[in-house]
Amino acid sequence: MKKIKAIYPGSFDPPTNGHLDLIERGSRIFDELVVAVLHNREKEPLFTVAERQQMLEETSRRFKNVRVTNFHGLLVDFVEKEKAQAVLRGIRAISDYEYELQMALMNRRLSPGTETIFMMPADQYSFLSSRLVKEVFRNKGSITGLVPTLVEQRMRAKTSGKRGK
Amino acid sequence: MKKIKAIYPGSFDPPTNGHLDLIERGSRIFDELVVAVLHNREKEPLFTVAERQQMLEETSRRFKNVRVTNFHGLLVDFVEKEKAQAVLRGIRAISDYEYELQMALMNRRLSPGTETIFMMPADQYSFLSSRLVKEVFRNKGSITGLVPTLVEQRMRAKTSGKRGK
Amino acid sequence: MKKIKAIYPGSFDPPTNGHLDLIERGSRIFDELVVAVLHNREKEPLFTVAERQQMLEETSRRFKNVRVTNFHGLLVDFVEKEKAQAVLRGIRAISDYEYELQMALMNRRLSPGTETIFMMPADQYSFLSSRLVKEVFRNKGSITGLVPTLVEQRMRAKTSGKRGK
Amino acid sequence: MKKIKAIYPGSFDPPTNGHLDLIERGSRIFDELVVAVLHNREKEPLFTVAERQQMLEETSRRFKNVRVTNFHGLLVDFVEKEKAQAVLRGIRAISDYEYELQMALMNRRLSPGTETIFMMPADQYSFLSSRLVKEVFRNKGSITGLVPTLVEQRMRAKTSGKRGK
Amino acid sequence: MKKIKAIYPGSFDPPTNGHLDLIERGSRIFDELVVAVLHNREKEPLFTVAERQQMLEETSRRFKNVRVTNFHGLLVDFVEKEKAQAVLRGIRAISDYEYELQMALMNRRLSPGTETIFMMPADQYSFLSSRLVKEVFRNKGSITGLVPTLVEQRMRAKTSGKRGK
Amino acid sequence: MKKIKAIYPGSFDPPTNGHLDLIERGSRIFDELVVAVLHNREKEPLFTVAERQQMLEETSRRFKNVRVTNFHGLLVDFVEKEKAQAVLRGIRAISDYEYELQMALMNRRLSPGTETIFMMPADQYSFLSSRLVKEVFRNKGSITGLVPTLVEQRMRAKTSGKRGK
Repeated sequence: MKKIKAIYPGSFDPPTNGHLDLIERGSRIFDELVVAVLHNREKEPLFTVAERQQMLEETSRRFKNVRVTNFHGLLVDFVEKEKAQAVLRGIRAISDYEYELQMALMNRRLSPGTETIFMMPADQYSFLSSRLVKEVFRNKGSITGLVPTLVEQRMRAKTSGKRGK
Repeated sequence: MKKIKAIYPGSFDPPTNGHLDLIERGSRIFDELVVAVLHNREKEPLFTVAERQQMLEETSRRFKNVRVTNFHGLLVDFVEKEKAQAVLRGIRAISDYEYELQMALMNRRLSPGTETIFMMPADQYSFLSSRLVKEVFRNKGSITGLVPTLVEQRMRAKTSGKRGK
Repeated sequence: MKKIKAIYPGSFDPPTNGHLDLIERGSRIFDELVVAVLHNREKEPLFTVAERQQMLEETSRRFKNVRVTNFHGLLVDFVEKEKAQAVLRGIRAISDYEYELQMALMNRRLSPGTETIFMMPADQYSFLSSRLVKEVFRNKGSITGLVPTLVEQRMRAKTSGKRGK
Repeated sequence: MKKIKAIYPGSFDPPTNGHLDLIERGSRIFDELVVAVLHNREKEPLFTVAERQQMLEETSRRFKNVRVTNFHGLLVDFVEKEKAQAVLRGIRAISDYEYELQMALMNRRLSPGTETIFMMPADQYSFLSSRLVKEVFRNKGSITGLVPTLVEQRMRAKTSGKRGK
Repeated sequence: MKKIKAIYPGSFDPPTNGHLDLIERGSRIFDELVVAVLHNREKEPLFTVAERQQMLEETSRRFKNVRVTNFHGLLVDFVEKEKAQAVLRGIRAISDYEYELQMALMNRRLSPGTETIFMMPADQYSFLSSRLVKEVFRNKGSITGLVPTLVEQRMRAKTSGKRGK
Repeated sequence: MKKIKAIYPGSFDPPTNGHLDLIERGSRIFDELVVAVLHNREKEPLFTVAERQQMLEETSRRFKNVRVTNFHGLLVDFVEKEKAQAVLRGIRAISDYEYELQMALMNRRLSPGTETIFMMPADQYSFLSSRLVKEVFRNKGSITGLVPTLVEQRMRAKTSGKRGK
């Protein structure tokens, strides 16, 4: 029997129910799943990388083979460092798919032994993205059911904190 | 550690190098991979299901955790019968992808515990399909490099057999 | 106030819950909605046009401004005969969408006053098609929840009738 | 008979002939059409929201059931405030379409009673966007026929005003 | 200076104004353009290959560097026989495009020296296909403006001939 | 015989092997190919327009009918100034394709005599873009084989220069 370890990389700013759905699906297929928050160069993130990592840890605690961390630099270098065999990505719309394929081909070229594996989130999350969640929230729409309760609370705290200033 | 068994279903009429590439990739990720030739209702297949199964067996013999078989009826029923956890599908062009997503969503509905997992064949096979191989062959073009040598031989044998009649 | 009458054309072989969902949505937007079963040249339909029309009538009876009928020939000629202003079409996958756009552009050319109007079915029906329903049914999978109960009964009756022969 | 009121939201910076074409088509289908300029967070708009609203008012004056206004915040909140039943969106390229579908699904979730309705602009406008118009204008290309004459005049005035400074 | 000869292959059953538009565009770019009617295995063609070739000859006579012919077998073998350097293809919708890319990649593999070159027909023909023309005609819709006058006459003659039987 | 001159416009920041592949293919089809670096308003280019032009000159020196230059303003104005007949563009993914079509339609409208001609780069470059190359390089991944050796050297020089400061 093989032990397959997969990396699920992303920005997760914030984590949505679609992300959590994929983490659950991945945890059932892989022996170990490492959720990895990318330090990217987004101009104005809502949450710091440490905050995102903590929210992911709390909301995915129930999956025993899931670990949450963060990484700098190239994904394939992180995969190698972790001695993982696979990268997990969720696919939704066509436009995502194109970009995902492009990245997967580039990653295969940079590291031929790393396979990218695509899974579909539940269809009620097919329209969900962190960007859309932030936009709805900023316009005072309800995000209940779109993100875990904990994330919703942290988003409210963040905003009232800002208002308090 | 979990033992993940995946089904790789298809028509495989004939098996191409793209199929073999995906079988190899799948065999590295899953503990057990079952390549399953579908009895579908194609009007004029080139090879019988038994012939296709045999070609797949011979060309994937080198992958120790790969087994080849065939099935009737619904894929999800076969997955259940095999006690598998996942269905493996290759994705190439956008149009494939749409159909694959539709099938995967239907299969998830029919059997919520079955995950469909998508992997990419090597990019030199991105344009390859059984239908295209047959069309090139019928028009006397070279299919060397598009299918395993064994399949090429069987295709020639089949045609000269027909001519002999 | 204007009185807008729309035609919802299709094969409906058989009507699915996705079709019924769109009929309901259309009946809320238009003053009158005419569901029109097309006499097309499908080789082996499951139901006759009369049977499809009757199933649509029974399942859409609760929408007071919906009428079911059938038509031959060009859609735009039928639209004109009915003195309708719009054609209603559901959009789901990208591939549908392309074909729908092509048809809508052709229809606009043939009849500039006829607008094609696109609405989305509920997302749980985004993967649903008559063809897929028939395929699942033929392979003895459950179609409960995919088609109205009445349609499911008629499909069973049809099959056992055939078996009886 | 029902009275259907639809909202046609957008940035309209500037309004193009494609927008006007869709306004005309919408005014023929709906009892009332509200063109609503969104206060979005574009960094450097060409025209202020008030200027865009005024240009839309002048160019759509001939459609008696069309009203122009502007809104802040979530579209679905504005729809509710206006007691409208539908949102009108134009669809052109595939990439638009994906985004439009995503927004429509999110809006349906936030407000299940609001239907998004898609119509096609005339095909000679299928390549037209406000962004492209601004790019052509900035590079001193002719935009005659791409925007209403009034809009072209305002664009020239704006630029010479800037030059004057 | 180089002399570039291109092949424009197709079924042309019947030739449409979109085909003629592309022939005109190709004749302006290439030194010689060979329009080549493919003997394919369509079950029930409307016109014979000879009839299609003749209609193409008559309607493209005004382009001095255009020649019309027909071919059997693989396109790349015909390209080689003609000592041509390029294959011309029109692109319209996304779905076309995918198939065209697949064919172009296969052809490049079979014959690395042959380039496939894509050009766009005029946008008023973007929705036009031989299949759609036949469908409209069969349902007694007007095809004026969709095909050359000569083709329209031949289509009428063909039908009345059939009726005469 | 005609003399066809084509413009291959782009940002080329930096030039990749995909660009060079297309330059080679274009040089075989056209009598003269002008590679034109666009002065665009990218915020932080890696190389100046002059540096990009020089790298393109050095790497495409072996193609005798290729000239490298740069331009400001509208592409169609530059095409006219150069008395060229065609614009060459590479097509890869679907998303590119949509944008390319939109630009080509706009350019045809601004200058009906200019044809846009699409060619495919070699499939091993289908995932390659300047943006992706810069991202890999910034994260210290290997770009050998993705860009010409000269470009790789200049990128290293640029970075160490920066470090030196």
